[in-house]
Amino acid sequence: MSTPTAILLISCPDQRGIVARLSNFVFERGGNIVDSDHHSDLQAGRFLGRIEWEETADPAERLHLRAQLAAVADRMGGQWELHFSDVVPRIALWCSRQEHCLLDLLWRHQAGELGAEVACVISNHDHLRRHVEPLGIPFHVFPITAATKTAQEQRQLELLRRERVDLVVLAKYMQVLSGDFLRDAPDVINIHHSFLPAFAGAQPYHQAHGRGVKIIGASAHFVTEDLDAGPIIEQDVVRVSHRDTVEDLVRKGKDMERMALARAVRLHLHHRVLTYGNKTVVFE
Amino acid sequence: MSTPTAILLISCPDQRGIVARLSNFVFERGGNIVDSDHHSDLQAGRFLGRIEWEETADPAERLHLRAQLAAVADRMGGQWELHFSDVVPRIALWCSRQEHCLLDLLWRHQAGELGAEVACVISNHDHLRRHVEPLGIPFHVFPITAATKTAQEQRQLELLRRERVDLVVLAKYMQVLSGDFLRDAPDVINIHHSFLPAFAGAQPYHQAHGRGVKIIGASAHFVTEDLDAGPIIEQDVVRVSHRDTVEDLVRKGKDMERMALARAVRLHLHHRVLTYGNKTVVFE
Amino acid sequence: MSTPTAILLISCPDQRGIVARLSNFVFERGGNIVDSDHHSDLQAGRFLGRIEWEETADPAERLHLRAQLAAVADRMGGQWELHFSDVVPRIALWCSRQEHCLLDLLWRHQAGELGAEVACVISNHDHLRRHVEPLGIPFHVFPITAATKTAQEQRQLELLRRERVDLVVLAKYMQVLSGDFLRDAPDVINIHHSFLPAFAGAQPYHQAHGRGVKIIGASAHFVTEDLDAGPIIEQDVVRVSHRDTVEDLVRKGKDMERMALARAVRLHLHHRVLTYGNKTVVFE
Amino acid sequence: MSTPTAILLISCPDQRGIVARLSNFVFERGGNIVDSDHHSDLQAGRFLGRIEWEETADPAERLHLRAQLAAVADRMGGQWELHFSDVVPRIALWCSRQEHCLLDLLWRHQAGELGAEVACVISNHDHLRRHVEPLGIPFHVFPITAATKTAQEQRQLELLRRERVDLVVLAKYMQVLSGDFLRDAPDVINIHHSFLPAFAGAQPYHQAHGRGVKIIGASAHFVTEDLDAGPIIEQDVVRVSHRDTVEDLVRKGKDMERMALARAVRLHLHHRVLTYGNKTVVFE
Repeated sequence: MSTPTAILLISCPDQRGIVARLSNFVFERGGNIVDSDHHSDLQAGRFLGRIEWEETADPAERLHLRAQLAAVADRMGGQWELHFSDVVPRIALWCSRQEHCLLDLLWRHQAGELGAEVACVISNHDHLRRHVEPLGIPFHVFPITAATKTAQEQRQLELLRRERVDLVVLAKYMQVLSGDFLRDAPDVINIHHSFLPAFAGAQPYHQAHGRGVKIIGASAHFVTEDLDAGPIIEQDVVRVSHRDTVEDLVRKGKDMERMALARAVRLHLHHRVLTYGNKTVVFE
Repeated sequence: MSTPTAILLISCPDQRGIVARLSNFVFERGGNIVDSDHHSDLQAGRFLGRIEWEETADPAERLHLRAQLAAVADRMGGQWELHFSDVVPRIALWCSRQEHCLLDLLWRHQAGELGAEVACVISNHDHLRRHVEPLGIPFHVFPITAATKTAQEQRQLELLRRERVDLVVLAKYMQVLSGDFLRDAPDVINIHHSFLPAFAGAQPYHQAHGRGVKIIGASAHFVTEDLDAGPIIEQDVVRVSHRDTVEDLVRKGKDMERMALARAVRLHLHHRVLTYGNKTVVFE
Repeated sequence: MSTPTAILLISCPDQRGIVARLSNFVFERGGNIVDSDHHSDLQAGRFLGRIEWEETADPAERLHLRAQLAAVADRMGGQWELHFSDVVPRIALWCSRQEHCLLDLLWRHQAGELGAEVACVISNHDHLRRHVEPLGIPFHVFPITAATKTAQEQRQLELLRRERVDLVVLAKYMQVLSGDFLRDAPDVINIHHSFLPAFAGAQPYHQAHGRGVKIIGASAHFVTEDLDAGPIIEQDVVRVSHRDTVEDLVRKGKDMERMALARAVRLHLHHRVLTYGNKTVVFE
Repeated sequence: MSTPTAILLISCPDQRGIVARLSNFVFERGGNIVDSDHHSDLQAGRFLGRIEWEETADPAERLHLRAQLAAVADRMGGQWELHFSDVVPRIALWCSRQEHCLLDLLWRHQAGELGAEVACVISNHDHLRRHVEPLGIPFHVFPITAATKTAQEQRQLELLRRERVDLVVLAKYMQVLSGDFLRDAPDVINIHHSFLPAFAGAQPYHQAHGRGVKIIGASAHFVTEDLDAGPIIEQDVVRVSHRDTVEDLVRKGKDMERMALARAVRLHLHHRVLTYGNKTVVFE
């Protein structure tokens, strides 16, 4: 599609006429709605919506649009985000020593699937540098110890700001991020190698093997201070049997992790994920 | 939800402002939209939408609504259907000798899952009568031979009209319906025991076994004159292995058939299926 | 297959030559092996196997076989079970008020899928009697209160003994069985409506909805004193979205529960499940 | 596992005592069976088996083993293959312009998942050279035209012989191989981007979109002269909806293609696939 689009994500108290008000607003601007989807959580009394329409590329007009929308949304008591399809988000991929999720995302990036620019790769080890630099993507190492963690996180935050990063993707980054870091950082998506909330914490494949489950899973979620408890965006599962050792679970799990993380990141980068409370609405 | 809703399914040439026009129409009537979803098939140049809003139960008002909608839809060149959530559709279940799909639908009916009234069960055999009559549902037998088929189909159509049947569900009915019948009948949904378009025609499980596939499927579709080629509503699959005999495929297949047919019927009865060309849009 | 088969399930310390010894034993008796499968858990150092061969129907010969096998197995330090395909197991179905699992198992029973005789249905309510008695299956009600539970469980055990029940299937039976009961009862299989170990305990669908998971599950497992912690036989999952209410999860969950429980029961009744430690080996 | 194993794949007319004879043979050699699995196709009257046991690394002993096995298998009228776990198979990856399957296999190769050596990559285009040569793997280009095809295939066969290639993997190689080539080549595995036998031939994703299916698939199969009709090893599927364009099907399909091809190749390289007639037995 050559015409750029504007994408509104909005959450507000449920009330009569929201869809009409929003679609009128678009119509009166001369916008053509190409996609609109919404959901009312009756229990929570909230309207949750996504509207996408064809929009001008003119920067002044867009500023004007933003101001008008603020007025409309304020009247409805809404929280909202406005994105433009021709503004390419910038992401930072974080990794440690395992390469499968990183390589998968880098490949999708090069195949044009993500719709984002990879600003940089950040790691606590030098291990995966050789996969990143040949692609012309900066690779930054921040070794982490208990003593240096706080200072390193400040340097990481500076780097994210300098690189104007919109999204941090933890592609098997094996360090826990502090609450201080998370408060100042952009959105952070993590992949946990279990079917949350089962087997939160360390060594989920060992836990799953010990419990003798017949299906294992992986969960892509937003990172919050409460470890492995943030809003879930996407989950995937695969059948296992008594023949599978822990090593087999790890191997099979890698494929799930790659898939679940890539789907979650792609959905978020296409502005299809709205969080409210500890949940997500995924407009697919 | 105690308030009844109106549900509009509409298909029209794609054009600017459709969502605004429709949601305004609802807003101006004082309706509260509880669900709206649409899709533009850019290749076909068609807008395909579903809007559901809280609506009065007053019959005169509803007639008026229908007239107003006709005017709006006509201006957009649209084909449309209007349904009300408190008008319970009437369905006829057709079967032959196999009981699994029939029993599954009857159970869901009694559990309140379908949201329909079972007007009657029609079969070409007496075989399953004992499962139907104890539930207080009429069971009609129409034996079919090459000689009697045309006359029997006329009698079947009369029965459908007399019982005001909105949907015919072929729950493993093993006769082919004629084009003449289909032209005069309400919508007809069939379950085919293969992953269409693979293994159309007779004995699909034998075909699948012969080909050595690793996954088998079932397809619920609207019936058209072109056998097994109507618009697909829902499909399901299950893994099989070299250990599975044809009898195992039949047994595993029954579960898929039950599930795929039940989901398709439920979606249609909740007015979530829109056909255009030889395809369906399923608003889930 | 008209020739009856013998089925040996055996677990013993891993050692050289087990398969040879067992297959020789069968060969020397003139038996023809139709299926054999085994697994060595290298970590636990255990051999776990299943062998099925064509065997005489003569009762004296079978007694002799059992004695010979005991000698062979003892030399290997093994725990073993011997079954015959023409000895039909007897099961008791236990239920409370929900009918979906009970009806599903009764259909499969009538369709000849289970390979078992339903000795009786046991419930703590009269609610589902009308689905059972027309099939000629006895329906027994044992109301349970805190005061009567111990006495009622003794009466239930007597009934199971009198009816020579080999397997108890908890088809949504909503009472917890005591350790005393379990020690004296035959094998007990339960269906838990979550993807264990996630959401063990009460109201798992409410828990899953609250956590905002994207996939829900059901787990069929052997019952042990430790609630929801027994060896898992089979699990199933289904995708859900933010549109699904708790009621939708319950509805979708019913289908998973039916499928997972039916598969687990069928596998066990075909002597394909071997437990060791807190795990199962499923010879599929 | 440090001890090497021997793996026997055997297909022969079904007869009494096969498992005993084979396991005795291993036992008398002092071998320890670590895995054995078999299947009798009663309809075809064939025994199909796989036995894996710990075996010496001594080359003279292995020659002796092969001679002994030949005698045993000949008496049973069997076709058989004998492999050793410490003999690493050599594979050639064939590609055209699309990189997703090639890259996926190269990652898995580097992660040690495949258990094979990549002897070389062969392509009809220079396009993907930059992904291959940095890994130290030779990249050979054989441009194909109608006029040069026969001669080029002869040169390709020479290269395969020179490189002692055991398996050719068509990782989205877009040329049809001739019957002459296939007669002289080692085993060839291909990935077809549809759920065979549905949508064989060209542009399966366009065909699937046109038919409006709700699930798409990919099939990994051995290549025979009859295009897309060789024995199927592995299949995978993914749900699609009316929202998915042909481009979306292509994107979603890539993930399935990668997974199904990688699983099929891995199973074959671990000597777990036995073909008979136009089918495969996969010993998982």
